[in-house]
Amino acid sequence: MNTPGASQPSHSPAPIALTMGEPAGVGTELTLKAWLARAALPCPYFVIANAEQLRATASMLGIETPIREITDPVETTEVFHTALPVIDIPIPSIPIFGEPSAENADAIVTSITMAVDMAMNGKAAAVVTNPIHKRNLYDAGFPHPGHTEFLAALSGEAVEPVMMLACNELRAVPVTTHMSLREALAALTPELIVSQTRITADALKHDFGIFKPRIAIAGLNPHAGESGAMGNEEDEIIRPAMVQLQQLGIQVTGPHPPDAMFSTAKRPTYDAAICMYHDQALIPIKTLDFSGGVNVTLGLPIVRTSPDHGTALDIAGKGSADATSLIAALRLASTIASQRRQRA
Amino acid sequence: MNTPGASQPSHSPAPIALTMGEPAGVGTELTLKAWLARAALPCPYFVIANAEQLRATASMLGIETPIREITDPVETTEVFHTALPVIDIPIPSIPIFGEPSAENADAIVTSITMAVDMAMNGKAAAVVTNPIHKRNLYDAGFPHPGHTEFLAALSGEAVEPVMMLACNELRAVPVTTHMSLREALAALTPELIVSQTRITADALKHDFGIFKPRIAIAGLNPHAGESGAMGNEEDEIIRPAMVQLQQLGIQVTGPHPPDAMFSTAKRPTYDAAICMYHDQALIPIKTLDFSGGVNVTLGLPIVRTSPDHGTALDIAGKGSADATSLIAALRLASTIASQRRQRA
Repeated sequence: MNTPGASQPSHSPAPIALTMGEPAGVGTELTLKAWLARAALPCPYFVIANAEQLRATASMLGIETPIREITDPVETTEVFHTALPVIDIPIPSIPIFGEPSAENADAIVTSITMAVDMAMNGKAAAVVTNPIHKRNLYDAGFPHPGHTEFLAALSGEAVEPVMMLACNELRAVPVTTHMSLREALAALTPELIVSQTRITADALKHDFGIFKPRIAIAGLNPHAGESGAMGNEEDEIIRPAMVQLQQLGIQVTGPHPPDAMFSTAKRPTYDAAICMYHDQALIPIKTLDFSGGVNVTLGLPIVRTSPDHGTALDIAGKGSADATSLIAALRLASTIASQRRQRA
Repeated sequence: MNTPGASQPSHSPAPIALTMGEPAGVGTELTLKAWLARAALPCPYFVIANAEQLRATASMLGIETPIREITDPVETTEVFHTALPVIDIPIPSIPIFGEPSAENADAIVTSITMAVDMAMNGKAAAVVTNPIHKRNLYDAGFPHPGHTEFLAALSGEAVEPVMMLACNELRAVPVTTHMSLREALAALTPELIVSQTRITADALKHDFGIFKPRIAIAGLNPHAGESGAMGNEEDEIIRPAMVQLQQLGIQVTGPHPPDAMFSTAKRPTYDAAICMYHDQALIPIKTLDFSGGVNVTLGLPIVRTSPDHGTALDIAGKGSADATSLIAALRLASTIASQRRQRA
């Protein structure tokens, strides 16, 4: 495994690389707004995007973020106090807000590839990704289901990456993600739960600085099956996985009744919840903190976070997009990168 | 349909009937504690339970609730200021906290039957049920899956009753309830969604006083299926149900992405959420308000609520049980009964 970030002198940590994302979505606006909140960011960031579109959007929406082109991430720290540092990449089609163009797919992918390269060779401390419009990339021949799988491929990892959703009050990891609920039931195996929980436990230690992580495993069925009265996946899939995890020395509890485990009283009793399907993790996160949630990819050699929302094409270019999640993603990326530096 | 409550003179609304529930659980303690919060209750209540057990529990736990036996609900209002009114029923086995006895099953069922009779003939304004231990009743030959189905049978309704969970911030109705997630997927039909939503819309009007209810229908799959990319139940089951509901003049929106619809910004945009499975409704309710949630049965001729928790055998008899949900259930029962009286 590489040791990303190692080439940067320790007195000046590398900046964070932010990708362009879909330029017809809210990413450009959020990128500009996040810079206005720079006092809240422990680490400066640069964006790999089209400088002209950033300037035009700032001007159109009246966002007072000056743009400064840089050619190397090392210039970021000096520039960041007075302007948003941009590594400029050309885009073939002038973006129309709300209408993604397949002509820009290559530029969107290039931005991600460059950011990952910079993180792998230590020029960036972390990668934060603006939302992409998957269908637009698929139409242009993008062969990965999403960001996470693409990043795993770019960083050369054999391990399946793990998606964690984090807000101030809860960390939740869905072991199955973007598939129908029916497919999620079919995909659930003890092996999957063990592998995702192991990666989560490692990340809690190394990226979140939790020496002895406490992990709560959710049941699948109402009341966690109530001793088999309402489903047997708890006995046949989840408990066998828990036995293996305990044998590996990982501190797990459960299977917990899914409706009760996210309550105010229960949340402080664990460091992360392992959830059986997408919405079991996402409903409590978004109910608790709709705009401040962050998506963290665990199990990669590089640090990667992203805002917990999509391209929001319906409000793109209107000035109403909320940068809270992107700012939280930039902050969490800094924190994790700093944890990793301390351990290096 | 009967007109429960009609026999009571309008200047003195009937009191609420509270059932005993499982006497080895937390119900006895909660019943005593709720009386201490009587200043917060708009309507007095009486309990149909064993007076001796109530006295013994009060004494053991140091709860200063005097017990007064009554023989008719009409005595409640006069007694309630100074003591908890109890319609005494014998129990064959002295309850041991945490250890339900099948010998008491008949008494538990009698308490429910009496409360429903009193509500049907107007001596009680509503029924609030303390939690039962289903397995104990099943062992004694109880033929109903739970409280709700038993109440429907007692009140002579042909309509399938509907479970609503309500807290201050959200009302949620799961169209499938106590079955495995796999069974819930198989049970989901347009007919079921239409029938449960109609009953919900009627109850919002008549029991909650909402003239033109706004109902949000949840999707089943992540991102509500994302145009079929992650499941087709939205197109094949949920949207056809919504078309029928709109033709019936019911104002529905959706299918909403399940993770986003319970956020602080979205909750005020609807009066009730129709959810596709138990935890889709229960996770947001219990995440928002673990102890204040109330279970309301819609579609019955009588008013019925219950606390949104079980018998809690593990903490029964220890004095630590939280009466917040029972108090909220008593309050909501009063409110609904009052709405129905205004309409009568």
